[in-house]
Amino acid sequence: MNFIEGGVCAPKGFTANGVLCGIKKGRTKNDLAAILSRSPCAAAAVFTKNLVKAEPVKLTMKNVANGKAQAVIANAGNANACTGEEGYANAKKTAALAAAAISAAGTPISEDDVLVCSTGVIGQQINIGAIESGMKGLVTGLSGAGSGNVAAREAIMTTDTRHKEAAIRVEIGGASVTLGTMAKGSGMIHINMGTMLGFITTDCAISAGMLSEALRESIEVTYNCVSVDGDTSTNDTLLVLANGMAGNPEITSKGKDYAIFLEALNALNVTMARKIAADGEGAEHLIECQVTGAKDDATARNLAKSVISSSLVKAAFFGKDANWGRILCAMGYSGETFGQAGTSVSFRSAAGEIEVFHEGVPLVFDEDKAKKVLAEGEVAILAKLSDGKGSGTAWGCDLTYDYVKINGDYRT
Amino acid sequence: MNFIEGGVCAPKGFTANGVLCGIKKGRTKNDLAAILSRSPCAAAAVFTKNLVKAEPVKLTMKNVANGKAQAVIANAGNANACTGEEGYANAKKTAALAAAAISAAGTPISEDDVLVCSTGVIGQQINIGAIESGMKGLVTGLSGAGSGNVAAREAIMTTDTRHKEAAIRVEIGGASVTLGTMAKGSGMIHINMGTMLGFITTDCAISAGMLSEALRESIEVTYNCVSVDGDTSTNDTLLVLANGMAGNPEITSKGKDYAIFLEALNALNVTMARKIAADGEGAEHLIECQVTGAKDDATARNLAKSVISSSLVKAAFFGKDANWGRILCAMGYSGETFGQAGTSVSFRSAAGEIEVFHEGVPLVFDEDKAKKVLAEGEVAILAKLSDGKGSGTAWGCDLTYDYVKINGDYRT
Repeated sequence: MNFIEGGVCAPKGFTANGVLCGIKKGRTKNDLAAILSRSPCAAAAVFTKNLVKAEPVKLTMKNVANGKAQAVIANAGNANACTGEEGYANAKKTAALAAAAISAAGTPISEDDVLVCSTGVIGQQINIGAIESGMKGLVTGLSGAGSGNVAAREAIMTTDTRHKEAAIRVEIGGASVTLGTMAKGSGMIHINMGTMLGFITTDCAISAGMLSEALRESIEVTYNCVSVDGDTSTNDTLLVLANGMAGNPEITSKGKDYAIFLEALNALNVTMARKIAADGEGAEHLIECQVTGAKDDATARNLAKSVISSSLVKAAFFGKDANWGRILCAMGYSGETFGQAGTSVSFRSAAGEIEVFHEGVPLVFDEDKAKKVLAEGEVAILAKLSDGKGSGTAWGCDLTYDYVKINGDYRT
Repeated sequence: MNFIEGGVCAPKGFTANGVLCGIKKGRTKNDLAAILSRSPCAAAAVFTKNLVKAEPVKLTMKNVANGKAQAVIANAGNANACTGEEGYANAKKTAALAAAAISAAGTPISEDDVLVCSTGVIGQQINIGAIESGMKGLVTGLSGAGSGNVAAREAIMTTDTRHKEAAIRVEIGGASVTLGTMAKGSGMIHINMGTMLGFITTDCAISAGMLSEALRESIEVTYNCVSVDGDTSTNDTLLVLANGMAGNPEITSKGKDYAIFLEALNALNVTMARKIAADGEGAEHLIECQVTGAKDDATARNLAKSVISSSLVKAAFFGKDANWGRILCAMGYSGETFGQAGTSVSFRSAAGEIEVFHEGVPLVFDEDKAKKVLAEGEVAILAKLSDGKGSGTAWGCDLTYDYVKINGDYRT
């Protein structure tokens, strides 16, 4: 399994592009992205569990329901959420405009095979005129040789400070199979499914059913283990398109090939989960909580999620304060059970490892060393329990002045 | 029903005191408080649902189990949580020291009738020597004429910027009955029971069973509707002591007298819930979310709680930004169902009222007026649904730079 360059354009048959069409006044980054597969794809998706779903989410749920799709159109600058019938009509028009332009450019596709995703401010009607004016240029650029991921990955960024993409190559059934991805996500991120916009492309031959199964298995241990601020967005969508061009024997059941595919998918999604947490709004630290020795994996994951979701734990990391009591506290209100007397807690980073709580008893520890360990950009919390063999990891970030600043005045 | 002065000392037969004994280095406020009833009391309590319970919580759960108690000892500066057997022994010693001192001063009580509560940093052994040295002075001061609430209310403050107390007088069965309370709570506050230290005294004659029932009914609509930061503490305890000295016919079942008592208890607890939210760590605004027209009261409360718990809603209030989309978003992930198309949202404060979302459709509104409404210290979010007659209210505060500052370096 090798990480490679190219993001969503790395798998065979996929092109991408991004343009600035003017959806949000004053934005200078691209704001409209497209991903296209030369041939029809098996498709699967997971969506926000928020009852209040954005209009493009409703449309994309409908369009992906038959397990097939061929293109994705995504925009930043407006979430098209809480916008009612007018908002839904605009999402539908976006798909129709894209299908017409792509068909005119030589790849005949139906508007039902276009998946639409939006991100940005909630509660304002989207500038459909801007999308209409930008669509032709966007689609024309899709004919490029495959570096369109650079233009596309920028067009989905909102408060993200870094673009997020990755690609992986594995061998399945004697064929070289590639998976690529790009995602956005910085605020309104919580562990209740996709929690952002994420697009995965692959040339793997896999049935829509197995693709959906792999996506659901994967998010449990990747995207669903990320929290920035506890808010589950109205727009979360994670899509995967598989066009089969790698030429591997089609994966139609769980077996060795499925396992390799799932492993690659997990590696890709963990990479993105870490990138999203590290780029959480205002974040200065990526916090990884690893729980081991829990009674089972699900318990371990839930304990880890509770720790990285705690505002108090997050604020302590901002202050480089080894306040481990808040970690125990957050494990305690997770809803899971564990043996406190058999629990130990350490911090680990590039600057070293330090234990602060050993089998239920507070340790007197070197505060200076602890500050050094916590000063690194990536810090791991290691919670070792004595209840069994379950393990799990979750990712979050610290709570900073900048998080408050960014979100105190995001809309206006 | 009249609010009166005197806090926990307002009901007949209760005295209180507070001293500075030196539990936490550098503290200049009182740090050790006592409340004593001249005669034995019916007692009830609710405790943190955190699995990781502080040592004094474990002791107090045991001591109150028989529905009777007579004194409370509380300290700030150290939570005595995650401190194992040594911590439990220290909590027990605190009760024993208090019982001995109170008995020696002329009110014979058993250590099992002393309830112990601690608040402060987690994971450090408490300075029991300081408590021992301070106990005599603390108890001697209990003989005062009833203004000891002033010394006592200070001794439970941690990051609280204001003391919190209230008292109410009602007539029950022809007798004048008084309820008094004091509480602390500023951070690590979340809607999962008591969420702080709170002490209620009353001279009402009421059985322990009815007292417990009233307490449980009351917290559902008061203390359990407050969130500061989503963290449920290890030490949360809300105690009520009723000594019967008002001379009303003892309340032993639900009827008219119980209803009056519960109404007074609710009024007292709502007052304190609002005080705690308003004094949330770093808070500049008290946010009250009132949901009406929900399918039932429980749904309305849960929707309101979800709104005031959202980091993004809280940050928007800090920025005086009428970002109502985040309110809809938080209602959407509450786990409750509601009809979005029949939902309207307004903001209201002393500066006026402004509607921003009307029956499912975004309104174009006066941004300047909205800023003025949101600039007030107390702001209400009014969410009007069209699903039924349920209503509920929850209280929170904004998320500010100061919250991050306070919690970035609380321990060291």
